[in-house]
Amino acid sequence: MLKQPRILVFDTFGTVVDWYGSIVRELEDQYPGVDAHAFAKAWREQYHPMMQKVMRQELPWTKIDDLHRMILDDLCPQFGLAHLDEHERSDLNRVWHRLHPWSDAVSGLQRLKSKFLIAPLSNGNMSLLTHMAKKAHLPWDCVLSVEIFKAYKPDPRTYKGVLELFDAEPHEVMMVACHASDLEAARGCGLQTAFIFRPLEWGEEAQHMAKMHEEFDLTCTNLEDLAAQLGC
Amino acid sequence: MLKQPRILVFDTFGTVVDWYGSIVRELEDQYPGVDAHAFAKAWREQYHPMMQKVMRQELPWTKIDDLHRMILDDLCPQFGLAHLDEHERSDLNRVWHRLHPWSDAVSGLQRLKSKFLIAPLSNGNMSLLTHMAKKAHLPWDCVLSVEIFKAYKPDPRTYKGVLELFDAEPHEVMMVACHASDLEAARGCGLQTAFIFRPLEWGEEAQHMAKMHEEFDLTCTNLEDLAAQLGC
Repeated sequence: MLKQPRILVFDTFGTVVDWYGSIVRELEDQYPGVDAHAFAKAWREQYHPMMQKVMRQELPWTKIDDLHRMILDDLCPQFGLAHLDEHERSDLNRVWHRLHPWSDAVSGLQRLKSKFLIAPLSNGNMSLLTHMAKKAHLPWDCVLSVEIFKAYKPDPRTYKGVLELFDAEPHEVMMVACHASDLEAARGCGLQTAFIFRPLEWGEEAQHMAKMHEEFDLTCTNLEDLAAQLGC
Repeated sequence: MLKQPRILVFDTFGTVVDWYGSIVRELEDQYPGVDAHAFAKAWREQYHPMMQKVMRQELPWTKIDDLHRMILDDLCPQFGLAHLDEHERSDLNRVWHRLHPWSDAVSGLQRLKSKFLIAPLSNGNMSLLTHMAKKAHLPWDCVLSVEIFKAYKPDPRTYKGVLELFDAEPHEVMMVACHASDLEAARGCGLQTAFIFRPLEWGEEAQHMAKMHEEFDLTCTNLEDLAAQLGC
């Protein structure tokens, strides 16, 4: 039986915002000659290996903005964008600060906020998440980035760091994410868990690959559904 | 000539919320036999020496909630509250999470938020500031506590920490506070500064002691005045 949590923390990329669609649309608009779908995928696919370099201490602590920029500099020549200057690259890199929310996200979060303390718990850095929230009107009660803990999810220090900040028992916090690995790690720290099914995270062509996970405390189709299941 | 900042960071206790009046009212309501004015003053007066113990490393990093609680445990017997049990002390200590904003604060912040990124930069801990914002409807874009930097204002690491989080040049950030010492330290790190005159911070009887400071970039009577002076 589910105990009511008092704090909900959310993965953002994929769970709250549509990074794939947002990047594809911006690339198609700004750089029509580029294969936007392949570019978006390649950018995101390099993100895990880069984070792992930080976690293995092959790189010192490096915020996601800077990891995204290193990957972007690698990708530009591969996609015919070697000519982009510093200003253009810096602006393109900040597309991650202006990702669009899924259509259920703002309304779902508003409902959840009426009953719970809500915050992202994202590998995005503080400024990225703050700019994203301001632009997309995400009604967080506070912004929690792993940058505070200097460790990337799924490192246990990130989930335990939230417990410490809020003097919370593990069951008082629920992790909400569309990635099973994030939820498994949170569960390993004693948090409650809600899986959000986002079959379009990697675009329409990849949706047949998306897997519904039913092994967590809650299984939800979106954030409105989460609000309904939690009685908001 | 003032350059427009892009980020405003706010001291909270005294600048945004009326800690003195809030604590006096709650004590009068809950514990009518106690000298609420003397209690509120004594609680706050012990806060600087306690923070200094942390900064001199006589205490390990300790969040404000825990410093407030140590002081409270000292004060209880002095004010005839030795009988308070753990639950009652814990609840009273959390009065700092439910302080009331000055009457101009929410409307002033709403106006400022339309043009700038706004956040507290407070010695209050993350949970305290988040609960305060949720209850008082303070419309922060994110919550910045010195707890992130493990140093108390006026330590330069706190102001410089904000610059690093937001990849900001010093002049892009303005510190807003009713305490000259906070603004002097921020100015020492290159930040812009706005002084807010809060003559009632220590109650009506102490208001003749309050000094208007005009040596900072802006001098304001309250947060609505700050919004007006910044063209919001």
